[in-house]
Amino acid sequence: MLSFSRDFSFDATATQQRIMDDALLAIKEENESGRIGYYTLPETSLALIDELEEYRKTNALIAGGKIKDIVIIGIGGSSLGVKAIDSLLASKSESAVTLHLFENSDPVNISQTLSKLEKESSLFIVISKSGGTIETTSIFKTIIAHFDLDLDAADKERVLVITDAGSSLSKFADSYSIKQFNIPDNVGGRFSVLSAVGIVPLTLVGYDTKALLSGAGEFLDRLFSGEEKHLLEKACYYYENAKTLSINILFSYDNDLENLTKWYVQLWGESLGKIDSRGSSVGMTPIGLIGAVDQHSFLQLVIEGPKDKTVTFITIDDFENDLSIPDVSLRHIEKTDFINGKTFNELINAQCAATRQSLRDNAVPTDGIRLSRINEENIGAMIIYYELLTSLTGSMLKINTYDQPGVELGKQILYKNLETN
Amino acid sequence: MLSFSRDFSFDATATQQRIMDDALLAIKEENESGRIGYYTLPETSLALIDELEEYRKTNALIAGGKIKDIVIIGIGGSSLGVKAIDSLLASKSESAVTLHLFENSDPVNISQTLSKLEKESSLFIVISKSGGTIETTSIFKTIIAHFDLDLDAADKERVLVITDAGSSLSKFADSYSIKQFNIPDNVGGRFSVLSAVGIVPLTLVGYDTKALLSGAGEFLDRLFSGEEKHLLEKACYYYENAKTLSINILFSYDNDLENLTKWYVQLWGESLGKIDSRGSSVGMTPIGLIGAVDQHSFLQLVIEGPKDKTVTFITIDDFENDLSIPDVSLRHIEKTDFINGKTFNELINAQCAATRQSLRDNAVPTDGIRLSRINEENIGAMIIYYELLTSLTGSMLKINTYDQPGVELGKQILYKNLETN
Repeated sequence: MLSFSRDFSFDATATQQRIMDDALLAIKEENESGRIGYYTLPETSLALIDELEEYRKTNALIAGGKIKDIVIIGIGGSSLGVKAIDSLLASKSESAVTLHLFENSDPVNISQTLSKLEKESSLFIVISKSGGTIETTSIFKTIIAHFDLDLDAADKERVLVITDAGSSLSKFADSYSIKQFNIPDNVGGRFSVLSAVGIVPLTLVGYDTKALLSGAGEFLDRLFSGEEKHLLEKACYYYENAKTLSINILFSYDNDLENLTKWYVQLWGESLGKIDSRGSSVGMTPIGLIGAVDQHSFLQLVIEGPKDKTVTFITIDDFENDLSIPDVSLRHIEKTDFINGKTFNELINAQCAATRQSLRDNAVPTDGIRLSRINEENIGAMIIYYELLTSLTGSMLKINTYDQPGVELGKQILYKNLETN
Repeated sequence: MLSFSRDFSFDATATQQRIMDDALLAIKEENESGRIGYYTLPETSLALIDELEEYRKTNALIAGGKIKDIVIIGIGGSSLGVKAIDSLLASKSESAVTLHLFENSDPVNISQTLSKLEKESSLFIVISKSGGTIETTSIFKTIIAHFDLDLDAADKERVLVITDAGSSLSKFADSYSIKQFNIPDNVGGRFSVLSAVGIVPLTLVGYDTKALLSGAGEFLDRLFSGEEKHLLEKACYYYENAKTLSINILFSYDNDLENLTKWYVQLWGESLGKIDSRGSSVGMTPIGLIGAVDQHSFLQLVIEGPKDKTVTFITIDDFENDLSIPDVSLRHIEKTDFINGKTFNELINAQCAATRQSLRDNAVPTDGIRLSRINEENIGAMIIYYELLTSLTGSMLKINTYDQPGVELGKQILYKNLETN
């Protein structure tokens, strides 16, 4: 279960009510017209889980119990979401299968990841929506050479492709009779974690992806049927203050949430950093922090620096870990003994509460998302919460939330430079 | 070797020249008066390395070759710098000693780190400048209980303390005859990585800390003797544009630089986010990005979003890794074959160059720091570069760069809440 709270006041005026109504209508229209596809994934991706059931039986390597390492080759929207979810669930999983990621062109990083893998236990999943991502293709070729994969014969079962139907990568898979799953055309990379991009690897690693989808679906249904109004109000508050509260911090009190904050950074930054319909640059800057660590780093700036930030706290009610501060008293540091006997679960949540109070006292707008515990259902709800918040805010800002025209120039320059050198 | 370049123009006017002269004088005065101590660390910390030589001989556990795990218990300024440097050097190190860190009150994280350690091979280093950091004390007690450490007898050699002379932690160490190293009073936590805080653990792990100090010392000497003027100019540019270019991105094209960007975030954010002498909130927001990954995430916002950002690129000329894209051609994705034969070292640096060019074309002020390679000397120079840039900018902003009054309120609330519950 997720519960929500906020410290900034928001009493909707008639105008604000209209802005919120319009935005909700707009995203419903995106869904109903089929223009934007992520809204239907909680339903449509269920079919993937059935298909995977079948695939597991027919792929001799998986059926034979050989596969212990699911290896993703993907970058950006093709890796951030899967990584975020795996980071949260890995420590509780009893599955013998481990996820690995190749997601950068850094040679040292690629070499290190290669050295940890063995061909016999690995299934390689190449993920690229467009099919032509330069890092992904280059690393895939390196893997083929390193493990001497014979794609025309024995090793075609060791590779899986996730891409748009009709992409060059899709044609490649067809040509080698390699199994592929497709990403719907109308689902963008950064909104794709509940499509095959996330569901296929996460299911193969052994997570309860049905619960992930149902957690997302239930939250979405509630919003679409007029509940969860706080989300609309938050979008409206962000939209109206976009110029003055231009930095939106996600402050997560759980180490394992760090990769979720990176997923959020892509989603929020790439979706909302745009030129709007009037030709103006808009966009809010997302920042991910981890508590309590960043109380000792970034917090000073939030408290005393320019008042241009909002802060959303994520906390876990029950870490399902009862590690406590033992009843040890040390000479000269007895003054910290008052904390003996408390659990670290209590301590970290008390640290969050105190930090939030100190921000409130310093007029920084804050809100909170509490997860009852870390599980697939709650993660699914949190994923769709942020996707919906992004779509609503983007609609209010009158931008195209779903494209990324700004990054094309760099790609063109890269191709030109590499081809002529 | 480090080399520097920039794409924004800066032709100093007489006023700007005076601002830069004043700032350089101000930090020289901080040094000469002894008010701020980090400037002398490249010299004074050499004595620590000699002291450690002796300590290694007299500590029976180390002398006996038993210690394979250096375990730091510390948070914020007591861990970020060490972690940053270790992350860069670990993959090249031939040392059999590994660094571990306890740096958050997250119960799952603490349990996981505990489960990886064995008492017999571990040396525990407790680091807290003030001596009373709640996370550090709580985790230290947990370690004592978990490993059944007897500090009054056998295990006193298994613990090392790094703290200010006279702190409660220092008195604790004295009382149990536990070896301690002290942090100079005039060296703040986030400027302390070249003090005992960093030098002691890094030396024990096996890095060339003399080279680290000499890299820092040489850069500092050059600045103080009137060279490296680009640093003064950069500080002046940041200072003059602090309100409009309020976000400063460090975009590092090397996975292993991620923890250095976190160290930078603390240094820049906590030092410059302040209430200035006129009572106004000032401060610039630091953000760390990793290339090429974040080209697929944050870049769109930088290109098309509000023009409130500067970007500094860090690149490594020579990764000392010749992994290359093999000459593999795959049906239907042949169009990427033009890159076959290039090294990933070339690819990632070409990606950086293309991204930088695309930012330049979009009027985003950028500059670059090139490291010839990753080694202690270059890391030392980069550390002091950022410390000096912070001090110079802080001096121009007329703030106290070295305190952090804003975080005290949260601590008070925490203590009150915990004591009364």
